[in-house]
Amino acid sequence: MQGLMMNYPLTLNHILERAGKFYPGGEIVSRLSDRSLHRYTYADFYRRARALAEALQRAGLQRGDRVGTLMWNHYAHLEAYFGIPAAGGVVHTLNLRLGAPDLAYIVNHAQDRFLIVDDTLLPLYEKIRHAVRFERVFVVSLAGCALGQGCESYEQFLEQAQGDFHYPDLGENEAAAMCYTSGTTGSPKGILYSHRGLFLHSMMGALPDQMAYTQRDVMMPIVPMFHVNAWGMPFGAVLVGCKVVFPGPHMDAESILELLENERVTVTAGVPTIWFKVVEALESHPGRWKLAPDIRVLVGGAAPPETLIRKMDQYGLRLIQGWGLTESAPLATMSTLKAHMQGMAEDDRYRIRAKAGVAAPLVDLRAVNENGEVPWDGETMGEVQLRGPWIASSYYQLPEEKDKWTEDGWFRTGDVGTLDAEGYLKITDRTKDLIKSGGEWISSVDVENAIVAHPEVREAAVIAVPHPRWQERPFALVVLKDGAKVTPEDLRGFLEARFARWQLPDAIVFVDQLPHTTTGKLLKRELRQQYQDWKW
Amino acid sequence: MQGLMMNYPLTLNHILERAGKFYPGGEIVSRLSDRSLHRYTYADFYRRARALAEALQRAGLQRGDRVGTLMWNHYAHLEAYFGIPAAGGVVHTLNLRLGAPDLAYIVNHAQDRFLIVDDTLLPLYEKIRHAVRFERVFVVSLAGCALGQGCESYEQFLEQAQGDFHYPDLGENEAAAMCYTSGTTGSPKGILYSHRGLFLHSMMGALPDQMAYTQRDVMMPIVPMFHVNAWGMPFGAVLVGCKVVFPGPHMDAESILELLENERVTVTAGVPTIWFKVVEALESHPGRWKLAPDIRVLVGGAAPPETLIRKMDQYGLRLIQGWGLTESAPLATMSTLKAHMQGMAEDDRYRIRAKAGVAAPLVDLRAVNENGEVPWDGETMGEVQLRGPWIASSYYQLPEEKDKWTEDGWFRTGDVGTLDAEGYLKITDRTKDLIKSGGEWISSVDVENAIVAHPEVREAAVIAVPHPRWQERPFALVVLKDGAKVTPEDLRGFLEARFARWQLPDAIVFVDQLPHTTTGKLLKRELRQQYQDWKW
Repeated sequence: MQGLMMNYPLTLNHILERAGKFYPGGEIVSRLSDRSLHRYTYADFYRRARALAEALQRAGLQRGDRVGTLMWNHYAHLEAYFGIPAAGGVVHTLNLRLGAPDLAYIVNHAQDRFLIVDDTLLPLYEKIRHAVRFERVFVVSLAGCALGQGCESYEQFLEQAQGDFHYPDLGENEAAAMCYTSGTTGSPKGILYSHRGLFLHSMMGALPDQMAYTQRDVMMPIVPMFHVNAWGMPFGAVLVGCKVVFPGPHMDAESILELLENERVTVTAGVPTIWFKVVEALESHPGRWKLAPDIRVLVGGAAPPETLIRKMDQYGLRLIQGWGLTESAPLATMSTLKAHMQGMAEDDRYRIRAKAGVAAPLVDLRAVNENGEVPWDGETMGEVQLRGPWIASSYYQLPEEKDKWTEDGWFRTGDVGTLDAEGYLKITDRTKDLIKSGGEWISSVDVENAIVAHPEVREAAVIAVPHPRWQERPFALVVLKDGAKVTPEDLRGFLEARFARWQLPDAIVFVDQLPHTTTGKLLKRELRQQYQDWKW
Repeated sequence: MQGLMMNYPLTLNHILERAGKFYPGGEIVSRLSDRSLHRYTYADFYRRARALAEALQRAGLQRGDRVGTLMWNHYAHLEAYFGIPAAGGVVHTLNLRLGAPDLAYIVNHAQDRFLIVDDTLLPLYEKIRHAVRFERVFVVSLAGCALGQGCESYEQFLEQAQGDFHYPDLGENEAAAMCYTSGTTGSPKGILYSHRGLFLHSMMGALPDQMAYTQRDVMMPIVPMFHVNAWGMPFGAVLVGCKVVFPGPHMDAESILELLENERVTVTAGVPTIWFKVVEALESHPGRWKLAPDIRVLVGGAAPPETLIRKMDQYGLRLIQGWGLTESAPLATMSTLKAHMQGMAEDDRYRIRAKAGVAAPLVDLRAVNENGEVPWDGETMGEVQLRGPWIASSYYQLPEEKDKWTEDGWFRTGDVGTLDAEGYLKITDRTKDLIKSGGEWISSVDVENAIVAHPEVREAAVIAVPHPRWQERPFALVVLKDGAKVTPEDLRGFLEARFARWQLPDAIVFVDQLPHTTTGKLLKRELRQQYQDWKW
């Protein structure tokens, strides 16, 4: 029997309308190229986002058409976040850190029809211009650069709206946003977020036991808006109607700290790298910045070490770890403490906060190995799999990637982890880097971390190498510091204190350097190829 | 174009599963008939709710079957809240304050198949037993009473479960709960809540700018669980996994205060009557109860006067007004302050908090009069209309009530109100009690309140009486205090300071008493009939 409730869709349009109606006075602050601050209110944002939607409709945008954005974090990008979906389109955030070939591939694969681009990023656009086909290109003036060939002014485009915008009658499952993930293998893969998925993800993020967004907050997404929608923060901000601060292209520690202080930021988000630098700046200039107390800091993208969490606490920056992927919009877990953990010993609390956290409401999470779901023992590793309303059900026009989903409909994240007795996930490896030895799993990351803890080691990579008897065995490649005198046997002895015998690498080989991706990640794929025929 | 996100339903089952998995240690405390406290954990609750679901399935419960509950607020009622929907059934909360004829009518109209009843309420069940047809009746032992004819023990029923429960594959729009509203006119009307509606209502209620439910809270729903699902609190509690305290049948001020103090309650809910009594007890026994600081108190059912809000603040009971109806699940507005209002003068803050508040996220609200939507001027009255995912789209098997919905799909609440410049709703009257005079609307409630403010008046009713020229004119019936010497002209003069001439009653008639409903509300319908032929 069906309930008798209204059929009311969950859309970003409801978020935009509510903010425009109830919070017109809220502030939106953006750092421009010349470091000056652009300020306007939610009333301006609301008017302009709707003007963008109307202008796009007048320009012939059809339901579901993709509109690319090549932009830093600022007010106009926020307008695109809401204005494009309001028109029935899909906001496709393009990663400005990608190389031209990848960027062109992505634009073409997504068939983006229009582009909104920062004037300071026109040189990047120039590099792909002849390889892609945008119907029109709208340029946002951050630095007052010249428009460029075939481009139009974003401001003049907005002026084409006449103030009689009407929302299309959208279903909640229609696409609202798109983001490509460029893994270390294969072609970039597009994830198509629905209105429903983004709405529920925003509401979940705002819950008191998650990021606790309130209208009294001042929110600063440092994580780029082209990285999985800045982890959902811009949508969350407009949902609760709080003040928003955008750092624009200035991501150095001092610029960040200046905004944190002057704008009284209370909640922010960024990758660990940013916070290492921020802590370094705080340590170098004691007392220089007076921040608001107890700033919540969402950190993801890579696991923050416990030392970083401790240091940030000293400066009132309360790190909350989130874990997820582009395919999970991205928040799947959050490392907030349960009520009964507040009274735990300090070390225990830090140990828990250094984990990826507990599955968010509406997210089902399991870790699976050959024996099925792993027990919650904090030890047994399994591939992390997800299910939920903001988890991708497939990639955009990539049927050959179907094996990323299990037969019973869970998404295989490719991450390997353990679950402890409280249900906290700890990521231990990537599936493809895991070493499967005689039916047991060995985390390459754990062994690498242990090797790097040796004072004479600069860097290490541990990979799986095929083995006739054990299927695979761990193999370590180590870069020593200049003048180091350590032997492979010394390192082995060093590791024996931490690991069982069968977990130790069977070979430790010293090399001068290791291969990396452009973003600095170890290119283990290359190493595995190089050593696949190793004779044990 | 459809987004590519998983089709994951929003159901109460997800809430139950998540609580059982992540918060097994959370406490649930219930006051029994003999005033003793029953305590168990979420692990117990989870196991028993699923056992109830399994036992119901074994008893032949089919998808959508209604199971009635005739119970106070306690652990077993919470089990029914989740166990019945988990089995695919509909939990139908029966109002134990209704008379036997209404109760029997409702049970028969809903076609309830099973009943779960407190042993202390068996006398009430006995009164309807021969007028209804439950297939089986399960008795919860609160006081150790005898089972009664044809009844079974709830505990023994649970024992029939064998621990191999499986959720049916529910769609989110399937019915989960049911509640009848018994207005002052017509037959009781059934509202059928969907899993989706209740899930979204719970998530909304938990948001930081609404009731801010967190796992660290201790929640005590005083409002009965047969009153619109205790305003959604039990669902919200299990969603966040917080400790829950149930007052059972003991609703007197001292019992309430004892639980507030001993169980360290941080968030609670009840009608103004409860809080009048609580404040009175606090005033009579200074220093007797040491409550947790800053308790959030959701108050609805009737508008709390500003004086009550001020008094409660003195005792650390922070009143948050909610407004809604059975048809809106019930939260449609909440009177929390916006960020910029925190710094307002005290009087202004109280004035705002005494209003019904701002439309909740996912609720569209408008006030409509003959000229369409009223402006946000705080003066123009209109009928309040609602739209949203937890607003009823029709009554259960009552097609003749279709006119409660507008042609464009909004629910007519029957309440009349104004909206101020910030979007805060103030309820001024019920549609049917409103006086429509020469194209202008006069609030009967405003005039009544003004008359009652006169020191010699005990009670007043203001009704619309037909008028040949003005369509309707206000007519006041006043009960004076013993020995009062005031004249109608005196009262008129007293009112002239507050109202425009055309808003004043054309006649003021003194009577010995006024007719009331069983719950103490003025029976204006009767008065209107009595005076409909009044000659002006």
